[in-house]
Amino acid sequence: MRKVDLRQKVISENERLAVENRRRFAQSGSLVLNLVSSPGSGKTSLVEETVKQLKGDWSIFVLTGDLMTENDALRVRRHGVEAVQISTGEACHLDAGMISEKLAAARAPRYDLVIIENVGNLVCPSSFDLGEDLKVLLISVAEGDDKPLKYPPMVRASGVLAITKIDLVPYTDSDPNRLAENALRINPDLTVFRLSCKTKEGLEQWIGWLKAGLAAKRRALAKG
Amino acid sequence: MRKVDLRQKVISENERLAVENRRRFAQSGSLVLNLVSSPGSGKTSLVEETVKQLKGDWSIFVLTGDLMTENDALRVRRHGVEAVQISTGEACHLDAGMISEKLAAARAPRYDLVIIENVGNLVCPSSFDLGEDLKVLLISVAEGDDKPLKYPPMVRASGVLAITKIDLVPYTDSDPNRLAENALRINPDLTVFRLSCKTKEGLEQWIGWLKAGLAAKRRALAKG
Repeated sequence: MRKVDLRQKVISENERLAVENRRRFAQSGSLVLNLVSSPGSGKTSLVEETVKQLKGDWSIFVLTGDLMTENDALRVRRHGVEAVQISTGEACHLDAGMISEKLAAARAPRYDLVIIENVGNLVCPSSFDLGEDLKVLLISVAEGDDKPLKYPPMVRASGVLAITKIDLVPYTDSDPNRLAENALRINPDLTVFRLSCKTKEGLEQWIGWLKAGLAAKRRALAKG
Repeated sequence: MRKVDLRQKVISENERLAVENRRRFAQSGSLVLNLVSSPGSGKTSLVEETVKQLKGDWSIFVLTGDLMTENDALRVRRHGVEAVQISTGEACHLDAGMISEKLAAARAPRYDLVIIENVGNLVCPSSFDLGEDLKVLLISVAEGDDKPLKYPPMVRASGVLAITKIDLVPYTDSDPNRLAENALRINPDLTVFRLSCKTKEGLEQWIGWLKAGLAAKRRALAKG
């Protein structure tokens, strides 16, 4: 019982801070994505492609989570975009408090787009709201089509499924249609993209969806 | 403080049960592996190749962990080997209690080889001893060479690194040498294999290592 109570307490405290983050993001009219996936599904590559295409028009802030190393933030900063690393040590997920702390030290007063790249973990980050507009779940074709069925809480918690490394399909037994079907059985409301940061397949649709998403959020905020 | 205390308590209770499991495995002279990796690194494929090659000579018991589905146990049972699924629901790792419970219901009185396939998670299972002889860490070349540096606790906790899906190297930016070097920087004692369950590359070495491992364990137990 004590274990359950404590877990509930940790999650409740996280919820409180997530609500604060969300209020702050609404005030500044930011679109906020929380990228979640297994390690090595291509989160940082997608962040890089996204900031390359949007940095001319939008102010962007990237927060990258990992147990160790600054690698991901360095990869993003190469493109001239503000990025901070969150090193979690042994923690298996980002929480809302880590985000609010880094926001407090951000350079710009506001951002059009905030991308949070979570720790690579297909389980634990599903329980932690960071104040984002939605979770973007990446699953690479190299991981296998059954992953949505095996890890349903993350599929349920996400608004987007990005099937990544689609260029590897000819060299694996993967069928992206089956992967998408398996995910949609768990969560029929998912928006699905098929992406390759190598061949650039699907990136135009992804960027178009982000632009529409920011416009929709601004309209919703204007209406109050 | 309470959070840390509780985590310590959970881990201590797990240690107690892991010691019991280890004693039981020693009594029956079993070699016990705990396979850990990100989701989709190829744990079940490696289990399948292993049981195909050893089932003629050895009695084998396989325990497969996932949040949901019986898929992995079904895949192993097709080969005529005893396999039970552990569905963890929302839990992000197997613990020693789950293993002892399934052992109590095992069909055979003893096994030469027990393979535990953990939940796909490169973080949390590193803290939970299940009573195994050693953890076998799988990282597929599709995940990227920097994963050992980003997830050091699992690398430190493991005795073997299996670099999997080595057949995909020509289609990725991966360099298995760099991956191995990064892992050996964290843990110089790792035994490293390069495997492809598709082309069968490296499987002969893997099976040879298992045979030597079982013989060594039996000798050590005979000496008391």
